[in-house]
Amino acid sequence: MRSSVVVSIGNELLNGFTLNSNLREISRILTIAGYQVARGIVVRDDPQEIGWAMDVSVDYDLVITTGGLGPTFDDITISSIAEHFGLKLVRNGEALKLIENWYRKIGVVLTEERLKMAMMPEGARVIRNSRGAAPAMMLSWNKCTIISVPGVPVEAISIMEDLLEDLRVPGSHNGERVYRVEGAMESRIAPSLKTAMERISGRVYIKSHPEGSESGVPGIVLQVTSSGDSKDEVEGLLDMTEKVLEELLSPLKLSHHSGRDIKS
Amino acid sequence: MRSSVVVSIGNELLNGFTLNSNLREISRILTIAGYQVARGIVVRDDPQEIGWAMDVSVDYDLVITTGGLGPTFDDITISSIAEHFGLKLVRNGEALKLIENWYRKIGVVLTEERLKMAMMPEGARVIRNSRGAAPAMMLSWNKCTIISVPGVPVEAISIMEDLLEDLRVPGSHNGERVYRVEGAMESRIAPSLKTAMERISGRVYIKSHPEGSESGVPGIVLQVTSSGDSKDEVEGLLDMTEKVLEELLSPLKLSHHSGRDIKS
Repeated sequence: MRSSVVVSIGNELLNGFTLNSNLREISRILTIAGYQVARGIVVRDDPQEIGWAMDVSVDYDLVITTGGLGPTFDDITISSIAEHFGLKLVRNGEALKLIENWYRKIGVVLTEERLKMAMMPEGARVIRNSRGAAPAMMLSWNKCTIISVPGVPVEAISIMEDLLEDLRVPGSHNGERVYRVEGAMESRIAPSLKTAMERISGRVYIKSHPEGSESGVPGIVLQVTSSGDSKDEVEGLLDMTEKVLEELLSPLKLSHHSGRDIKS
Repeated sequence: MRSSVVVSIGNELLNGFTLNSNLREISRILTIAGYQVARGIVVRDDPQEIGWAMDVSVDYDLVITTGGLGPTFDDITISSIAEHFGLKLVRNGEALKLIENWYRKIGVVLTEERLKMAMMPEGARVIRNSRGAAPAMMLSWNKCTIISVPGVPVEAISIMEDLLEDLRVPGSHNGERVYRVEGAMESRIAPSLKTAMERISGRVYIKSHPEGSESGVPGIVLQVTSSGDSKDEVEGLLDMTEKVLEELLSPLKLSHHSGRDIKS
């Protein structure tokens, strides 16, 4: 299975100001595309920290960075990545055209700060940002693909959704089903979950999430995930798991928790 | 300034299921306590990954881990930390007492899975969890303090808030003010922010957050943070910055953005 790392960049993620919603949304998209998200890393707007994040991620197949692509002095993601890999930063003609078009459309003149967003490492591919000024970047380094998107969630997610079909791992299928179990604490059903996973020979993963806490208020959400070579195989594994869980958890009822399934 | 790392543990944080709200809340508490949160790390429920997270964090003053303290088979944070540092896992009498009291209070019997939560590394200090069954843990390793709290947000945050006064760095004061600037794009005010920071000799940090995007809809949130040896010093720096920003951004208006200040 191909693996990926999400690197979130910005002081505001580490001082209580901003919730890192991009990690969840990007993880969701990458999971649908057939990747395992192996790690998330959150670093400050600091070239050395961004370099460290690259260092510990570049052995994975795919690295997505969010944040630090804008016009302000502390938007340093692209320059820090270029520096880390020893790549020259050049004004990218395609990025420049996208930025010119964006500001022309909204009737605003170009300034030095705005032009900074056209600087890209040599050899980088530019990706259009349909929701904002700063273009995204795609860079290959050995076997790793590095994609840098802006931190503004609506921009980050729309770019990643545009890229989904390009990123999809051929032949990889993921499935997820989410259930709710009423009337039990997590610690009571824990042995059954372990048994169920063993019966399906480790080909599905079952994670329980207490709703609230072990406070006596019963309610557990079960997340069952699986991956395989075809949609049928994955659905078969999930069907089998559902039956095993119903049997093991009886007389507790397993109810389908709608609206939370990840589509494959 | 003392520095810290927040390690979030759980597959559900890396597959699109769960939003990592603990990182923001714990970062907020640590910032108030006088720490810089240097990094956030999110890893899967995997002993090697948890070991790696320890490896890259243990040179900082303080490491907070969230998640993986419960009764299920994949709650492996404590055992993975013990294994990483070569510490023996023992049944901790104090943890056992807390767990027994918790289940007695809610009228539930102890099982093997529930007793698992009393296993702690030798030498660890147990911290009471007033909102859930799983006790938290504090461990010293060289100069680093490692604190492991549950992943359920209400439990994690109540434990961290209980610990705030114990963790507070003596003589360290942090201040933050948040403003809104109407009628400008981020790229227009970028040079003024840089100038303002230079005028205060780098003793304050100004971060701009576009509301929406560079889409022509004007609205920028400015977050000004500072730290110093006394509350008066910090307040003085923030007052000075406010005046400089008002002057540099004029005729744009700086309005106080209420309800977002971090209390020091």
